[in-house]
Amino acid sequence: MPTERNGAGSRETADLVVAGAGVIGLACAWRAAASGLDTLVLDAGATERASEVAAGMIAPVGEAVWGEEPLLAAAAASAEAWPAFAAELQAAAGCEVPYRRCGALHVGLDRDEAAELRRRRDLHGELGLPATWLRGSECRRLEPGLATAVAGGFDAPGEAEVDPRPLLVALRAAAAAAGARIEEGMAAVRVVVTAGRVAGVELADGRTVDTPRLLAATGARMGGELLPPDVRPPIRPLKGEILRLRAPPGERPCERIVVTERVYVVPRAGGEVVVGASVEERGFDLRVRAGSVHELLREAYRALPDVAELELVECAAGLRPTTPDNAPVIGPTAIDGLLLAGGHHRNGILLAPITAEAIALELAGAQLPEVIEPLRAERFSRPLQEMGA
Amino acid sequence: MPTERNGAGSRETADLVVAGAGVIGLACAWRAAASGLDTLVLDAGATERASEVAAGMIAPVGEAVWGEEPLLAAAAASAEAWPAFAAELQAAAGCEVPYRRCGALHVGLDRDEAAELRRRRDLHGELGLPATWLRGSECRRLEPGLATAVAGGFDAPGEAEVDPRPLLVALRAAAAAAGARIEEGMAAVRVVVTAGRVAGVELADGRTVDTPRLLAATGARMGGELLPPDVRPPIRPLKGEILRLRAPPGERPCERIVVTERVYVVPRAGGEVVVGASVEERGFDLRVRAGSVHELLREAYRALPDVAELELVECAAGLRPTTPDNAPVIGPTAIDGLLLAGGHHRNGILLAPITAEAIALELAGAQLPEVIEPLRAERFSRPLQEMGA
Repeated sequence: MPTERNGAGSRETADLVVAGAGVIGLACAWRAAASGLDTLVLDAGATERASEVAAGMIAPVGEAVWGEEPLLAAAAASAEAWPAFAAELQAAAGCEVPYRRCGALHVGLDRDEAAELRRRRDLHGELGLPATWLRGSECRRLEPGLATAVAGGFDAPGEAEVDPRPLLVALRAAAAAAGARIEEGMAAVRVVVTAGRVAGVELADGRTVDTPRLLAATGARMGGELLPPDVRPPIRPLKGEILRLRAPPGERPCERIVVTERVYVVPRAGGEVVVGASVEERGFDLRVRAGSVHELLREAYRALPDVAELELVECAAGLRPTTPDNAPVIGPTAIDGLLLAGGHHRNGILLAPITAEAIALELAGAQLPEVIEPLRAERFSRPLQEMGA
Repeated sequence: MPTERNGAGSRETADLVVAGAGVIGLACAWRAAASGLDTLVLDAGATERASEVAAGMIAPVGEAVWGEEPLLAAAAASAEAWPAFAAELQAAAGCEVPYRRCGALHVGLDRDEAAELRRRRDLHGELGLPATWLRGSECRRLEPGLATAVAGGFDAPGEAEVDPRPLLVALRAAAAAAGARIEEGMAAVRVVVTAGRVAGVELADGRTVDTPRLLAATGARMGGELLPPDVRPPIRPLKGEILRLRAPPGERPCERIVVTERVYVVPRAGGEVVVGASVEERGFDLRVRAGSVHELLREAYRALPDVAELELVECAAGLRPTTPDNAPVIGPTAIDGLLLAGGHHRNGILLAPITAEAIALELAGAQLPEVIEPLRAERFSRPLQEMGA
């Protein structure tokens, strides 16, 4: 029940407040509302929402780098969950979720790049990921638009993409259809903790919502003042610039995701072509640097010369919510009822299904999935508590 | 009087209808209304308005090329008229006209470019234009942000710039203050000619305005069906892409306009930095090509490396209204009461003062200024009439 009398004034209540209406917050809110919890989503607005500018690659093979194996296991599990997640979401929302298993082709634009790529391919072999090594001419047979400079690469046919903007629309519709209330233009500013457990949430307009549970899904802002210092995860904004281009019908520069050492190109069914992304430590800065746009266009053109003929529709910047180990923080904290789902770095869209599943299990009092264990929110807060003790 | 009874229905009238509300149309409308003519401006909307995306260079020296001397004389006269025009407009409109005589520096980025530039400098000498030759180090002393590759160049201290967007606002305000009526979102579709003279104008919504005079200032659309074929000037759209960047206060990449063989960079007082412009024959196509943006950024960066650090605010395309000799068509036609002011190619802002003066003189029954004679509208329509005779 959203509002109840409590003494003199009326007080708002919820079983669960979700702070943040990006892909992670909405996916968790959808699952929670569907499980019967009275769920209130606080949507602070789209300006800083990484989901709005994300490329939407569902590409665990592309993410495989040395030293991040725990993240990779979760990424692989979530990628596997994506087709069913998309189908279920589409049915629940009544609108399209344009998930597409288009595959990805990683290419080296000279012999050095190809040699480096081949070493990464060997890591994939060790990790059991499907990826086939190809000579340059074989790459160009798969993607005739590739530059003749391509010296080799590997094919990862299981990689996929989803346009995050219709995805956000669908998640919002599904959450609402499941009974979640979504308050637009309203930020959560402080969690109210009483005797070690969540009692409520203060909102930007001065109201307080009484709730026993808060899920913080506030992206790059999750290191801010919403949470008490002891459980505040070390999340920082990692700026990325990204371009949206448009190809005329039937004239996409590639059929698969094409990835080089410096750029990726994601073609969508409707003709949109996404080129990303820069990586810059600049704090909460959403300005698009001319130099970044120049480099993205140059590198996309080096790989796929036809990109030059596309229409440039949008240059945007986003803030990847990033932890020290590049893996997200998912699950409970030392404060009873306070859950975190954030720090997804460049993998928020990819990890949305497994993140929502983990939060739903936690809310139901069940065990987190095994692949989520290394990503528990508590891994960063524990040492801080010890220091404070 | 805008409306009068005429038999059964009410008919709209005007002493002068101006079709087009770009810088040329509005400047002419302002002068005409100020002279006492009941003036109606038809503003078809900003989408295709070249003035909205123009760089706003008032740079006759930069425009000096072999074989276009008649245009150059008009350009020099109009540039000279600009300071008084800006001051008068500012007083009439009550809002700022940010005209700024910042000077321009043309640079060559290697010895070949510098040698070519030196030949152009010699042309300036023949034409009596002020421009001083500088060695590379001297260029960098004037503009320390220039790349070390700069091999030489010339300084043209009289060149200026004006931001066309506040200019449009001021012209609109001045025209309205002088009594002109401006109908927004309304295109003129056909001039009504009776017995060899203008009788009225049909509008896009089916209305007809009775008027003895029509000034066509419809930019790249002036070769279209508004005018009868015999007097229709051979104007085509010449696409140009242009970028708007923003520098933090005090961090402009240059103080003067900087021009290379392939790009120009216009710094404004408020921190805006304009980089232009591509030249493409693509018809009425306002899509921004990724390749054009790439080339503009690359070439601006080659000349002024600090451009990479600026914020990229806008990528836009415009349509230069262009005649076969790159000079405008200004003045009367074979149809009594039908005047043209268009085809200004890349010089619409530069030529606005002298164009408005010429049209005002023509409307008053006086002689066109001597420098306008070679730009008369009739130079293209005469041969067509002879062919038809």
